[in-house]
Amino acid sequence: MYLSCKFQGLDNISKIILIGAGNVATQLGMALQKAGYQIEQVYSRTIDSAKDLANKLHTNFTTDSVQIQPNADLYIITVSDDAVPGLLSELNFPNGLIVHTSGSLDLDILAPVSENIGVFYPLQTFSKNRESDFSTIPICIEAGNPRNLNLIKKVALKLTERVYEISSHQRKVLHLAAVFACNFPNFMYTVAEDISLQGKVDFNLLKPLILETATKVLEHSPADVQTGPAKRNDQVIMNKHLDLLSEFPQYRSLYESISREINKKHFKL
Amino acid sequence: MYLSCKFQGLDNISKIILIGAGNVATQLGMALQKAGYQIEQVYSRTIDSAKDLANKLHTNFTTDSVQIQPNADLYIITVSDDAVPGLLSELNFPNGLIVHTSGSLDLDILAPVSENIGVFYPLQTFSKNRESDFSTIPICIEAGNPRNLNLIKKVALKLTERVYEISSHQRKVLHLAAVFACNFPNFMYTVAEDISLQGKVDFNLLKPLILETATKVLEHSPADVQTGPAKRNDQVIMNKHLDLLSEFPQYRSLYESISREINKKHFKL
Repeated sequence: MYLSCKFQGLDNISKIILIGAGNVATQLGMALQKAGYQIEQVYSRTIDSAKDLANKLHTNFTTDSVQIQPNADLYIITVSDDAVPGLLSELNFPNGLIVHTSGSLDLDILAPVSENIGVFYPLQTFSKNRESDFSTIPICIEAGNPRNLNLIKKVALKLTERVYEISSHQRKVLHLAAVFACNFPNFMYTVAEDISLQGKVDFNLLKPLILETATKVLEHSPADVQTGPAKRNDQVIMNKHLDLLSEFPQYRSLYESISREINKKHFKL
Repeated sequence: MYLSCKFQGLDNISKIILIGAGNVATQLGMALQKAGYQIEQVYSRTIDSAKDLANKLHTNFTTDSVQIQPNADLYIITVSDDAVPGLLSELNFPNGLIVHTSGSLDLDILAPVSENIGVFYPLQTFSKNRESDFSTIPICIEAGNPRNLNLIKKVALKLTERVYEISSHQRKVLHLAAVFACNFPNFMYTVAEDISLQGKVDFNLLKPLILETATKVLEHSPADVQTGPAKRNDQVIMNKHLDLLSEFPQYRSLYESISREINKKHFKL
């Protein structure tokens, strides 16, 4: 049984090339290598990024798209969305399986480059210097045909059990929702830190609250566990906060607009 | 040594009365009981709440403020801020130590009721049906004199090592920052859930992202780990999101106003 699996041959991915060397490429590259894949090469236009990631992965790099090796089993594009069209015009892998990792680009954007295309979108926020635990990360996949979908799925399943087939439109919805689930909460933490620093209290005191608020949502619908003055329409406290915000005037309108939306949601105002 | 501690007598709190029976009273009452304190009585104007919490704590309850026992060592007021002034006009414990648990009320609001007053502010979000682990919760304390501060501190230290002496103004700053650290992120999760439901994707896919975003802040300044299109000033993606928001028009202005603030912060626009 083991042998017959191993010798399925052409249907398996083994050699991977990373196109891009940012946060996603770094964490994904390390995870794929740990899972037994061979990272053949790293491409990035920025020599320092290319070098750094190639060093981390003990592999080769290039900053010239023409030098990307043509014989890999899988090409993973991780560059930012706006860099993708320019990059694609330089690539030509008629037989290679090529995927992008973007939340908001269509699958079809890859069609001019290869017949074998797909999407491999890990739904997480990544940093170069913070190791990601892929076993907890959902990977949303899509492909041009069932064979490619299956190949991509096999790779994803080596990293996590949470593999989902998602259409391009659903992926865009997820990406938008992710802005509200990640980028905006992180900005709220930034404001809380700013207010703490300016108001001479220790931001660390708020960290258990931040963690509990996020952890709660694992088990409860956030609408059901909303707390705070705006949810209760507690004008007395909101007015006190607005008074205090004269010490932090840059955040007054943000406080007002979010409070108003919470109010609308919970009071159907 | 043990005996001399135990027989410090009057300087120790043993009998506690909870005034209010909401989320804070429920979690605090259970934690205090676990820590060995005797919850003598629960007061709430709402009979169901009073009864429920008294049942949980196997103690007595009253809905009549005149019936609150006068001989407890500590009275903890947990009612909502706007109910405090009315309640205080009904109370008279010239010798009892009386504290409130509010983030935004001054210590001095208690002065008409007793000479022994303080604040006991656990900085966390509480739910009736979700047990709080007080060992992780910072408790911010304040009192009218060092003796009372010491008494309150002893009680707080039975629940958590994280006990902080905080002035009324600092507490208000913390309370405002807590809105940004807890209430507003939770509302962002609510929006993400709404968009997921309407857009027919599973909100569960976003939960690892929510948790990672919060966990990251335990080790990094949130300003340093901000990600997303607004932070990169990526107009292409933001315009795509605005297009997609025509399917979720109720959240368009929220998306725009928060993105603008992130932009301002990170680009000094």
